[in-house]
Amino acid sequence: MSLPTPASAASQRRPRVLLFDVFGTLVDWRRSVARAAAAALQAHGLSDEAQALAFADAWRAQYQPSMQAVRSGALPFCKLDVLHRHNLERVLADWGLLAQVDEPTRAALTLAWHRLDAWPDVAEGLAELRRRCLLAPCSNGNLSLMANLARHNGWHWDAILGAEWARDYKPQPVVYQAAVQAFDVLPGEAMMVAAHSSDLAAAAACGLRTAFIARPDEHGPGTGESRPSGPVDLVATSLVDMARQLASWPA
Amino acid sequence: MSLPTPASAASQRRPRVLLFDVFGTLVDWRRSVARAAAAALQAHGLSDEAQALAFADAWRAQYQPSMQAVRSGALPFCKLDVLHRHNLERVLADWGLLAQVDEPTRAALTLAWHRLDAWPDVAEGLAELRRRCLLAPCSNGNLSLMANLARHNGWHWDAILGAEWARDYKPQPVVYQAAVQAFDVLPGEAMMVAAHSSDLAAAAACGLRTAFIARPDEHGPGTGESRPSGPVDLVATSLVDMARQLASWPA
Repeated sequence: MSLPTPASAASQRRPRVLLFDVFGTLVDWRRSVARAAAAALQAHGLSDEAQALAFADAWRAQYQPSMQAVRSGALPFCKLDVLHRHNLERVLADWGLLAQVDEPTRAALTLAWHRLDAWPDVAEGLAELRRRCLLAPCSNGNLSLMANLARHNGWHWDAILGAEWARDYKPQPVVYQAAVQAFDVLPGEAMMVAAHSSDLAAAAACGLRTAFIARPDEHGPGTGESRPSGPVDLVATSLVDMARQLASWPA
Repeated sequence: MSLPTPASAASQRRPRVLLFDVFGTLVDWRRSVARAAAAALQAHGLSDEAQALAFADAWRAQYQPSMQAVRSGALPFCKLDVLHRHNLERVLADWGLLAQVDEPTRAALTLAWHRLDAWPDVAEGLAELRRRCLLAPCSNGNLSLMANLARHNGWHWDAILGAEWARDYKPQPVVYQAAVQAFDVLPGEAMMVAAHSSDLAAAAACGLRTAFIARPDEHGPGTGESRPSGPVDLVATSLVDMARQLASWPA
């Protein structure tokens, strides 16, 4: 009996469209946000690295609950920037900093999510993958956030899809479905690329193929998923590795 | 008394976002569609250039009326590809060719609009403009059509906006407004770029700034607008000329 492995590459045709998760999969949000928080809040005692990382973690911990209010219909759709700003104020309040941090600082710090640094393989991997497939982010981040991350990191998307295009948040099926429909392909002609098994499972349930990228350090060294928890079509250690594997799939 | 001229460049700040009309402004749809029609329909007597151009003109003549059905609310929003296909069938019927042209030929010919050739200044002009501004098409073409045109012509958009993003067709105000909102800018921080005064007037009514690009040969030699029919903020003979002018505006 063999270990569960990806479906045989020999039976796979190369996807026409690759859709990417971004936070964690393409960018190191945690250290980027921590650096921005340390810079913005150093006057309020957030100069030390461990504190700044804890602040980034606390901010990110509000991410799923805030989107859940939209997914459930309790809140009309709004851009992730709006949720990030609301969540920042909750964290500032929890940390006893709300009264000390003024409006311009809150606005500027919210935009830290537009300037996240990519993992080192991403620019090269995306450029290589773009030679063979159409590429778009399918992230919960809003369009301007995605456009600014692309500028910051030197990426070339064919289009920006995801939550704002679909007006709901992953893992709602409409987000994956709307991305596939935008490119006029069948779900099986598209592949979702993510470092999170839950995202891939939701995409697979919509008929998309799936690629797992290992980002074991997403929440700090050794804390991320190093392998997928369910079946996927491709497993890679980086986007460069993924591009190398896909190059041998027939078009 | 002086002639009406663009507002003084000295009083203008450089826009943060440039939004582009595409059909006619960036691409020579007429000769590209005529070439595709001649190739697809040569077995049905459409081999001569004048006939092929007349076919392209007849197809394009259905463009505004078909969108008007969506703008008026008579038809729910659908991608321009769907309207192009429907309009093709009307023209084939008018030309007595409907029964002779099979389904695969109709489908393939509809995609001629995804492979239109750019005017010669566009790739260089967009690359130069992208050094200073965020760029997106704000066209009535659907996202996949825009993504394919960008691949065909070597363009790099920051995002694809326009009709499918807004789910209505220009010149409805929501199309310009949704594009501005997607980039988180004020209307006055965005500039609509087009070869058609009516498009620019609609954008200006939403508070956007405007750039007119002369495309005097859009519908055949000497048939297009060589100058704007109303006030605009910038007049250029090409995108390269526009980039040169904008470079001297303060950021």
